[in-house]
Amino acid sequence: MQFSSALLENAVNEFARLPGIGKKTALRLVLHLLKMDTPMVEGFGESLIRMRQDIKFCHRCYNVADGDVCSICANSLRKQELICVVESIRDVIAIESTQQYSGTYHVLGGIISPLDGVGPDQLNIESLVNRVQKEETRELIFALNPTIQGDTTIYYIQKRLQGSGVKITTIARGIAFGGELEYADEMTLARSITNRLPVESYMAGK
Amino acid sequence: MQFSSALLENAVNEFARLPGIGKKTALRLVLHLLKMDTPMVEGFGESLIRMRQDIKFCHRCYNVADGDVCSICANSLRKQELICVVESIRDVIAIESTQQYSGTYHVLGGIISPLDGVGPDQLNIESLVNRVQKEETRELIFALNPTIQGDTTIYYIQKRLQGSGVKITTIARGIAFGGELEYADEMTLARSITNRLPVESYMAGK
Repeated sequence: MQFSSALLENAVNEFARLPGIGKKTALRLVLHLLKMDTPMVEGFGESLIRMRQDIKFCHRCYNVADGDVCSICANSLRKQELICVVESIRDVIAIESTQQYSGTYHVLGGIISPLDGVGPDQLNIESLVNRVQKEETRELIFALNPTIQGDTTIYYIQKRLQGSGVKITTIARGIAFGGELEYADEMTLARSITNRLPVESYMAGK
Repeated sequence: MQFSSALLENAVNEFARLPGIGKKTALRLVLHLLKMDTPMVEGFGESLIRMRQDIKFCHRCYNVADGDVCSICANSLRKQELICVVESIRDVIAIESTQQYSGTYHVLGGIISPLDGVGPDQLNIESLVNRVQKEETRELIFALNPTIQGDTTIYYIQKRLQGSGVKITTIARGIAFGGELEYADEMTLARSITNRLPVESYMAGK
């Protein structure tokens, strides 16, 4: 792409570094910014810079936080003895958006994946084990993606916590609400039959 | 979406204002920025702010410029007596990227569209007419999108320049290179037969 302005070219190149944003999309976005009022663009740029400079990670659960402890850990109304173990901050946001979970989280920062060179030491697992022992956690809910890596991570942490008396569960897998049976993959369908529920608990969940 | 950090929420909301960027994409991009080094993110934010604050529009052709005159108008090697009339800056970048055009441009800033309330007065048409008369332009090449609005704009400007002696042309329409005949729309195919070229000039263009 040929630009007649170095300022424009620079902004487009910076945008095109973001994942999933090609040069053409970057140009479209930058030309949109060019049409916006200057204070709006200043607000946009500054909000990104401030976010990167000032954001912290919760000392307890490794979720993003504006201070030392995130707003979920700091909320005394949430069940502190319940920990939902997730891979990333994105999963926390997804679960929080359901407004159905009232416990706390623990963000691993990834999952065990030897092929990618990610072992237990690179993840926030040690702190989770310490936390479970120190805080007398009642239940650990795994909400990891159902991959081999996810299962390995569950297996590893479960082993580490053997004898601690904590209850370990994982979120339900099955046919999605609104999903049609004939389009479900065989694995999901087979597992949803094996792990079938009494109708009462199904109705209660609605 | 529920966020545990106001800084994160703010950055996501700012991103989601851009066209074609929804909340989920915005979150993905912001979490990517969060993983990047702070100086990189500062560079990104500042390049956008600086672009918006400092970018100018060329006094002559209304293209984006770092100074009063854009680098194309300032380039004495370009044929100043040739003006390519385009709708927007994006079209200038597209044509420049072909590296096949060595004249100058005139950015209209839109096209005549009475239904959208855009008349000739809102566009850089008066300045184009003045420029053609003052600069003794030899040829005006219209590179507008082939819509009714585009054709209306060509017709209007052509009328305004009647008697000026300037040659007025428009970029060729036809089957795209690599395009297959059977998938071409009827209008394009019909016009490409009517406006057929001698084989010599076709081969020369290759």
